[in-house]
Amino acid sequence: MTPLKLYDTTLRDGMQGHGMSLSAAEKLRVVEALDRLGVAFIEAGFPSSNPKEAELFTRLAELELERAVICAFGMTRRRGLAAPKDEALGALAASFAPVCALVGKTWALHLEKVTRVSPDENLAMIADSVAFCRAAGKRVIYDAEHFFDAWRDDSGYALECLRTAAGAGAENVTLCDTNGSSLPGQIGAATASVVAELGDAVEIGIHTHNDAECAVANTLVAVEAGARLVQGTINGYGERCGNANLVSILPALQLKLSYECVPPDRLRRLTETAHFVAELTNQRSDPDQPYVGRNAFAHKGGMHVAGIQADARTFEHTDPELVGNAREVLISELSGKGSVRSRAERAGIALDSSGAGEAVERLKEREHRGYQYEAADASFELLLRRHSGAYAPLFRLESFRVITEKRADGRAETEATIKIWVDGCRYVRTAEGNGPVNALDRALRDAITELHPHLAEIELTGYKVRILDEHQGTGAVTRVLLDSADGHRSWGTIGVSENIIEASWEALVESLEFAFQPRNEQVAGSMQQVEKANRTETTSSR
Amino acid sequence: MTPLKLYDTTLRDGMQGHGMSLSAAEKLRVVEALDRLGVAFIEAGFPSSNPKEAELFTRLAELELERAVICAFGMTRRRGLAAPKDEALGALAASFAPVCALVGKTWALHLEKVTRVSPDENLAMIADSVAFCRAAGKRVIYDAEHFFDAWRDDSGYALECLRTAAGAGAENVTLCDTNGSSLPGQIGAATASVVAELGDAVEIGIHTHNDAECAVANTLVAVEAGARLVQGTINGYGERCGNANLVSILPALQLKLSYECVPPDRLRRLTETAHFVAELTNQRSDPDQPYVGRNAFAHKGGMHVAGIQADARTFEHTDPELVGNAREVLISELSGKGSVRSRAERAGIALDSSGAGEAVERLKEREHRGYQYEAADASFELLLRRHSGAYAPLFRLESFRVITEKRADGRAETEATIKIWVDGCRYVRTAEGNGPVNALDRALRDAITELHPHLAEIELTGYKVRILDEHQGTGAVTRVLLDSADGHRSWGTIGVSENIIEASWEALVESLEFAFQPRNEQVAGSMQQVEKANRTETTSSR
Repeated sequence: MTPLKLYDTTLRDGMQGHGMSLSAAEKLRVVEALDRLGVAFIEAGFPSSNPKEAELFTRLAELELERAVICAFGMTRRRGLAAPKDEALGALAASFAPVCALVGKTWALHLEKVTRVSPDENLAMIADSVAFCRAAGKRVIYDAEHFFDAWRDDSGYALECLRTAAGAGAENVTLCDTNGSSLPGQIGAATASVVAELGDAVEIGIHTHNDAECAVANTLVAVEAGARLVQGTINGYGERCGNANLVSILPALQLKLSYECVPPDRLRRLTETAHFVAELTNQRSDPDQPYVGRNAFAHKGGMHVAGIQADARTFEHTDPELVGNAREVLISELSGKGSVRSRAERAGIALDSSGAGEAVERLKEREHRGYQYEAADASFELLLRRHSGAYAPLFRLESFRVITEKRADGRAETEATIKIWVDGCRYVRTAEGNGPVNALDRALRDAITELHPHLAEIELTGYKVRILDEHQGTGAVTRVLLDSADGHRSWGTIGVSENIIEASWEALVESLEFAFQPRNEQVAGSMQQVEKANRTETTSSR
Repeated sequence: MTPLKLYDTTLRDGMQGHGMSLSAAEKLRVVEALDRLGVAFIEAGFPSSNPKEAELFTRLAELELERAVICAFGMTRRRGLAAPKDEALGALAASFAPVCALVGKTWALHLEKVTRVSPDENLAMIADSVAFCRAAGKRVIYDAEHFFDAWRDDSGYALECLRTAAGAGAENVTLCDTNGSSLPGQIGAATASVVAELGDAVEIGIHTHNDAECAVANTLVAVEAGARLVQGTINGYGERCGNANLVSILPALQLKLSYECVPPDRLRRLTETAHFVAELTNQRSDPDQPYVGRNAFAHKGGMHVAGIQADARTFEHTDPELVGNAREVLISELSGKGSVRSRAERAGIALDSSGAGEAVERLKEREHRGYQYEAADASFELLLRRHSGAYAPLFRLESFRVITEKRADGRAETEATIKIWVDGCRYVRTAEGNGPVNALDRALRDAITELHPHLAEIELTGYKVRILDEHQGTGAVTRVLLDSADGHRSWGTIGVSENIIEASWEALVESLEFAFQPRNEQVAGSMQQVEKANRTETTSSR
């Protein structure tokens, strides 16, 4: 396998994305996760005098990494200034980071319209800056900004910029599609020409953006044309439409094109790394994300399932386990009696044959009414539990009442009162909220957590509402999906009713009930484990 | 410019996506929007005996489209059955749709492990089925399922399948990367070989999936290798990781590679079409989506802005106006002062310069709070009207109160009481409903229609709820979109609040108020007319 270097810039270019923000401590956690995944280079940011960045570099210097090398990022020197007098270059030289990534201009249009620097002066800026970092003992990667636009306008000058950087000691020159303007044909042809011209003298890298939805493909095409260093970010985070997504690039290069990017066993960390970074940056994990999304290996039809049993290649482009994901067979396809029993077993629920039969009937009837258990694993488990005799209700509802009032020109005010019985005691609680469901949630928690304080830790992390058959207008059936988490694991519950308050109440109650049930810790833990269970079941049920 | 056919399969393959669901009436609206965008083919689904699909095809037959041709989808005949005896093929032949898309097997692995059909029998199935549809007077497009996997295993047999379909009368054979397994290099090489072998005899098409995050690039690479028909879906909807995204493919082909896919002026509808289909399918519009996302042409730094002033090419890969998008982040295409005034004019609202300025400010502030007017034309018009002095409120709210109560084992019961003033009279009305919003709707109508009986005709035809920033759990902000119709026209309104009842109330009231306003009948009618107005405005405001 040809070795290939992955260069992660999540912490620098990725942080340009809309709403991205990480503390120094969080960035360290990302660095550790990337090192465990096995990337070669981690670009940490600008080693400036900004206290937050300074703290990051101080703490990074103390970190022991297994494989990854930290890179500091900077620009070529300012016009008309000797490199040693440029403060930002000085900070690069003074940083502990053994590698400097220097970005510079390549495109005459930018020299003319943006920086107002002559082509010769630009070459001098490149040469001086690279040489300065080399003299400070750094390895240098030169990022040729707007390279592909420059190539289309004046390939001779673009090449001259690269040659200058290499001549001054850069070990790598990386071709950047900074505006994301290029398509695969253009990237392939330009990269091949550069490799033919300079490939013997210097390593070529590739850095793409996703403005034409081609960032991943453009990267792969460049590698096939001879690039041997790939820059990108986890989940493709980055400004505008994002950067090249390393999470999709890595498995394609390693599993489909036979490049060695990370040690083979590390690839299994891909899914957890992608989800971890999403969680830390407070970005939604895209369920349809290639390789690592919940739906990436989801199968619906019976023919698919039968095909996969015969040979997984029939309907799967990659073995999900190799990237740390799991095959998911949508639960609506699982509603055979055998699969229900095996699912129950894995959750530590003893379900006999008649119980399983009842559960299947109940499941069908509920799916018909609009329930959907794909994203509501906890509600599915509770349904099984109720037919096993192993179901312990958390409380008994006597009644609730929610009142929303609005006066002219005023905001609406909402209060909820609930009356429930927990372990033989009656609790009456009233709470206000910014909406009817929020008020109910508060009142219920207030009552429950007196006896079950650990349920206070549960956080509602997602609340989705879908109107089924919305043509019924405001009389349509409402489906509510609730995601909950308690720090150890996360789970989903569902409620369906014509009344949105009732649907929300159902999902709320199931969320707390699921957390309250005794469980087979070995199995019922993470979502992923549940998914694995599905996979096995299905295979055996058809 | 070389002509190229866009083939939209949002309504068939796109509907395989997770959580996708549209009624027949909604599908018709999508068909109309696609026709306005200018696509050549619209695949509507299976013309089966299923009542929902039957209704769709009946209504499609009556629809007058400007450019697009409707395609019906089906499979090659079943094994061992003469084509005329195959019910599904019979339904295709009986359908009004002039084009049939027939999918069939190409990959020996599938013949062996999934369908258990011999290679020769498969060829006969292809030939018979295509010939049957041709004999019924249909044009035929043959979708070669799993073509690229098949090509890698046995290119001779894969080619034989295509040759058989072409020989039986298919006007196009489309190469499908059904599992999304292929990378650009593979797609390019295989397509070029097919074009070299069969390009003189039959048109070649391409259909890709996004499992390797390469669907858009793979499509472009295939076109560069000679494919002349492109299948895909709006926003890339589809199962697992989605289909090829036509919203990114269309501008790349037309603006960057100079193919003529749609009449040049239609490309400006791209952004509104993408957002319209997202709203209708209740999918979140991705703010980072290439070409049409809110952040696609967002600029942060001062250097970017200065560069763009000097020459937009410095930092923009495409002129956002050409795809109906705009350069600024938060401000939609509607919120320029000039465009607001011209929109007002078209609705017969006299808006002076200071009124327009206030309206723009109000619009920005509301967009920031989560309002979105793309599917809420009526709310937008009311907003303008309020700044014109020409706004007549329908009633004055004194107060409302909604109570939802639930007792153990009982369904929730809801009642709403409203107190309003209409034309100097006070009305107090109480109504029950199957949910809080339904009860409010009934009470309000009950009061209003005494004086304004014609408002009783208004039907609420759609009710959508979206939770913004769903990480806030049940405390998140809620956006309600309401569609209304009165037999002559339909309109959309919006409400936003942390309290779902308040958000719904706002949308309800605006629906009735819109119907109550005096109007320029010529313009203020359908969504379509409003969309046309938007487009023209945008063009003239820059």
